[in-house]
Amino acid sequence: MNYPAGVKKTKCNMVQYSNRGMSLEHDLNETNEFYRISNRAIIYKKPTPITIVKVDYKSRIDAVIKEAYFKTPSTTDYNGIYKEKYLDFEAKETKNKTFFPLANIHSHQIEHLKKIREHGGIGFLIVRFSTLNLTYFLDSSKLVEFIETNTRKSIPLQYFEDYGYRIFDNYNPRLDYLAVVDIIYFGGK
Amino acid sequence: MNYPAGVKKTKCNMVQYSNRGMSLEHDLNETNEFYRISNRAIIYKKPTPITIVKVDYKSRIDAVIKEAYFKTPSTTDYNGIYKEKYLDFEAKETKNKTFFPLANIHSHQIEHLKKIREHGGIGFLIVRFSTLNLTYFLDSSKLVEFIETNTRKSIPLQYFEDYGYRIFDNYNPRLDYLAVVDIIYFGGK
Repeated sequence: MNYPAGVKKTKCNMVQYSNRGMSLEHDLNETNEFYRISNRAIIYKKPTPITIVKVDYKSRIDAVIKEAYFKTPSTTDYNGIYKEKYLDFEAKETKNKTFFPLANIHSHQIEHLKKIREHGGIGFLIVRFSTLNLTYFLDSSKLVEFIETNTRKSIPLQYFEDYGYRIFDNYNPRLDYLAVVDIIYFGGK
Repeated sequence: MNYPAGVKKTKCNMVQYSNRGMSLEHDLNETNEFYRISNRAIIYKKPTPITIVKVDYKSRIDAVIKEAYFKTPSTTDYNGIYKEKYLDFEAKETKNKTFFPLANIHSHQIEHLKKIREHGGIGFLIVRFSTLNLTYFLDSSKLVEFIETNTRKSIPLQYFEDYGYRIFDNYNPRLDYLAVVDIIYFGGK
């Protein structure tokens, strides 16, 4: 594609030097693609769950969904396999600067992460404070511990600082969250 | 709900004594729900992948998808965790009575099952010959072996008989495919 020279340059700079404006989902999709290509892990985002009501079948290939609704997800958004272990997580962004509102995660998603842990899997939460451009990894054990020992409806940023791990922006992989999994679950290897 | 007596009875009989007419997907969803409730495994069907083009936002709750398209799935339909292992499978029905056409599975789904195996996970295929009411479990190793040693574009029923495991209809769980996983991966325990 041809862009006017100035536009192309701006676009390049944006991609190379700054992560601002890129969504967490976009960064995680790039990261997971990198992990798959380099054969480090097989992790995918699940499709958005919807209820389909009406479909126009002009042909088998050209079916158009004409009416559908978003469903509440029963599970988390991402799962897969890493170092022979089942891995499962939810990712959320907040514009809030001091805390992460728990209303952002459904209670059955938290129950799901608890179950995964019980069954010997790896479960965690990735939270981005987008206004501050800070991204944290919080293991499901620490998430559940917070919920079970607090009555408040939000997790302070400080809790992520104290019990979570900061994930720094990088070039490739974009957000190396498996480096944190290595520290917590595989003794830093 | 109130049904005329005769209709209710017919419905009851159908549910209790016969599986014919129930789709494989329906049976697997019931089975997975049973596994989850009994805490034996945490396995879900992934939502159907779609590309959303147009959404009407009357309110956040009442958003209606007005235009969307089905996408080719990158992975298999089902995954989860069983006995601390990552488990992943695809399920397909065919009306054919003598063979399973390989066109029913996308090549990248087969590649995905190969990768899962490489990474230490459990991968397999469940195929129902719906006209014969026969359901088989075929481990991904046997699926890949067939593809790599044959040029034909379909797997004969006999191959499932010889290298797969028949899964019998049951009451609860409906299709106890984890019993086969136990035989293959956990020494029958």
